[in-house]
Amino acid sequence: MQTSVAIDSHAMAEQIMAWCDELASISAESEGIHRFYLTPEHHACNERVATWMRQATMTTHVDQAGNLIGRYASNQADAKTLIIGSHLDTIPNAGRYDGILGVLLPIAVIDLLQRQGIQLPFHIDVIGFGDEEGIRFGATLLGSRAVAGTWDNNWWSLNDRADTSLAQAFDQFGLDPDAITQAAYAAEQLLGYLEVHIEQGPVLEQQGLPVGIVSAIAGARRFQIDIEGQAGHAGTVPMTMRQDALLGASEAALLIEQTAQKFGVVATVGQLTCGPGAVNVIPGNVRFSLDIRSVDDAVRDEAIGHLQQQLEKICHQRRLTCQWHQIHQAPAVKCAPWWLELQQQTMASLALKPLVLMSGAGHDAMAFADMTDIAMYFVRCKGGISHHPDESITSADVAVAFDTLLETLLQLGQQTQAN
Amino acid sequence: MQTSVAIDSHAMAEQIMAWCDELASISAESEGIHRFYLTPEHHACNERVATWMRQATMTTHVDQAGNLIGRYASNQADAKTLIIGSHLDTIPNAGRYDGILGVLLPIAVIDLLQRQGIQLPFHIDVIGFGDEEGIRFGATLLGSRAVAGTWDNNWWSLNDRADTSLAQAFDQFGLDPDAITQAAYAAEQLLGYLEVHIEQGPVLEQQGLPVGIVSAIAGARRFQIDIEGQAGHAGTVPMTMRQDALLGASEAALLIEQTAQKFGVVATVGQLTCGPGAVNVIPGNVRFSLDIRSVDDAVRDEAIGHLQQQLEKICHQRRLTCQWHQIHQAPAVKCAPWWLELQQQTMASLALKPLVLMSGAGHDAMAFADMTDIAMYFVRCKGGISHHPDESITSADVAVAFDTLLETLLQLGQQTQAN
Repeated sequence: MQTSVAIDSHAMAEQIMAWCDELASISAESEGIHRFYLTPEHHACNERVATWMRQATMTTHVDQAGNLIGRYASNQADAKTLIIGSHLDTIPNAGRYDGILGVLLPIAVIDLLQRQGIQLPFHIDVIGFGDEEGIRFGATLLGSRAVAGTWDNNWWSLNDRADTSLAQAFDQFGLDPDAITQAAYAAEQLLGYLEVHIEQGPVLEQQGLPVGIVSAIAGARRFQIDIEGQAGHAGTVPMTMRQDALLGASEAALLIEQTAQKFGVVATVGQLTCGPGAVNVIPGNVRFSLDIRSVDDAVRDEAIGHLQQQLEKICHQRRLTCQWHQIHQAPAVKCAPWWLELQQQTMASLALKPLVLMSGAGHDAMAFADMTDIAMYFVRCKGGISHHPDESITSADVAVAFDTLLETLLQLGQQTQAN
Repeated sequence: MQTSVAIDSHAMAEQIMAWCDELASISAESEGIHRFYLTPEHHACNERVATWMRQATMTTHVDQAGNLIGRYASNQADAKTLIIGSHLDTIPNAGRYDGILGVLLPIAVIDLLQRQGIQLPFHIDVIGFGDEEGIRFGATLLGSRAVAGTWDNNWWSLNDRADTSLAQAFDQFGLDPDAITQAAYAAEQLLGYLEVHIEQGPVLEQQGLPVGIVSAIAGARRFQIDIEGQAGHAGTVPMTMRQDALLGASEAALLIEQTAQKFGVVATVGQLTCGPGAVNVIPGNVRFSLDIRSVDDAVRDEAIGHLQQQLEKICHQRRLTCQWHQIHQAPAVKCAPWWLELQQQTMASLALKPLVLMSGAGHDAMAFADMTDIAMYFVRCKGGISHHPDESITSADVAVAFDTLLETLLQLGQQTQAN
């Protein structure tokens, strides 16, 4: 079989950009992109993308969770399946590439493969997941968890803002909740899972690189932290006699920054409220959030332990008290070593610098980590901006991503053949 | 004349405490104390206090600004007038001593003087000011500024929450706005201004002292400070690439604390809001307040200059920008040196430790600083708490304050006689 093909990847990239623009018009509101799970827009989007899949000679169906699946079948009888997926749903007022790019890029690559008559020793299922963002029902990754066989039956009673339950939404979309388990793949069928996604961060831009290799998806823990002191008159309480909760929280925020750098994790105080909140009253209580992520759960938890210990000291010195409440926890997932090796080799063969970086944001790939070997590519986005109408990528970068994905599939084909 | 008298100051203190309790029942709402300028409660309070003044043989009238004035006249033809004043209005849900104590304590002292047949070489006008807190019309010190002759005619169009203007409220209270200037005293009539007030801070309690001498009332400046950075994804932006506005504000809050201690001023960040304010988003903007006070305006302004310079450096290092907006400014006022000397001598003669402290809070005395020589005593309050139903003082401390005020008047009488 061939290991490289003569292609006009720039033309393919233009096609992908045009598809992204076209999908941007499928929205629940005329201003911005608003496309949520099991809505008429979800249905319309599936139909449009299925058309492009079929143009690329893929067979298409919508699974029991509303995910769109297009298959580029192998000619080998015992072939396993490689899932290449990402999501077609959006947040409210979204950008046009987050998730979308990862569904449309492999369709274009497969279109090229079929036009060149290239057969692979594995089936490719391109999946456009119906829900990753979790906007409509609160829980995230509904689409990918159905496919990974980890659907949670507690979700059926989740309601959207119009008090439609997830079960009712299935019914309205023409899906049978009782059939949900049929959406799950069998692990032994799978060769692996591969996802291409915009970076949603500034690292590739800073490094001047169009594409990067993801080593792992960070696990996150979130806390609500309450610091209690003593409110008092801003004019009459001497500085040394204060129990100012905001000064404790200020030390905490800076401690969190230093600790993140020391342990090599990312940590953020994104919310902070200060009570009683009057210009002439010393703050008596402050509540703030902590979001802390790492590709290594043990390192992350060690950083949290350090933070708890140090914050206790700060509060003791300032005669404050401190309460931690965990509000979220998700473990880190690592991409498979053999995938990383293949990706690095692929990029090197294309004379691209194979930068390996972590993903701080969650992705559909997480849902598959326990089921099969996962891999991800990131594509540079302007200013690291995502979840915003200003989300922006270049056609030139998409062309590089196209070449990279194509070459990855070809090299994976060689490797699979050789085994 | 006598310089000391045999008295039961504890019984007088019990009387004063009972009066405070009685006034606490004159409120616009059944729960808590709510007594505002030119309201039926203001009128009822004036009537009640006037009764007590007349029992102490004082002549009473309500002036053209609604202030209640009780005179204990000297028998000397050319006598000047000493004003002993504080306010009878309250904040919403107030304590029962803030302002009130400073009106009722001198009435009890005068009651003792008249019962002992003691004449002084100066008139005493005890004034219960109608507005110090500024709750109803927003502007503060309306009562004392009328008496000090610094009434501002722009105030007439100020409205309360029911859209009643100050001019209309005068009319409803039976006052003639055109006569307001008649409320003003002539500076040359005055011997001075003396005010007794609860401390509203924790210094006397910490020092174990019932009464203290006020050296000056701090001047305050207030600012709204905006720090702008760049919002971003809490998972995907590396720590070193962030422009986190909250971390800049946290450094600012700690800088403000350090600067206050360095310059010997008090400074408070009482309000802070953080945008966009999501648990998984790096703060892109923070707005916070700064209240900074000193008895020395030059020192306070030097501290502000230092803060502005240092905050600029912090913002530069963090790639943030910073904007300051001044929202309030009031100069410091100093108590008269001869008063301080007299007060220290008085307390020493009563075997009380004459602690001199500053007032961080504003008081009616401020209104008189440009007109006559001012003096203040502070009385210890529990936990430094004021502007709250938990505001608390002891009868024992009131007895000490009674002795102190009485002895001050006797010694002032001697001194005035001698001149």
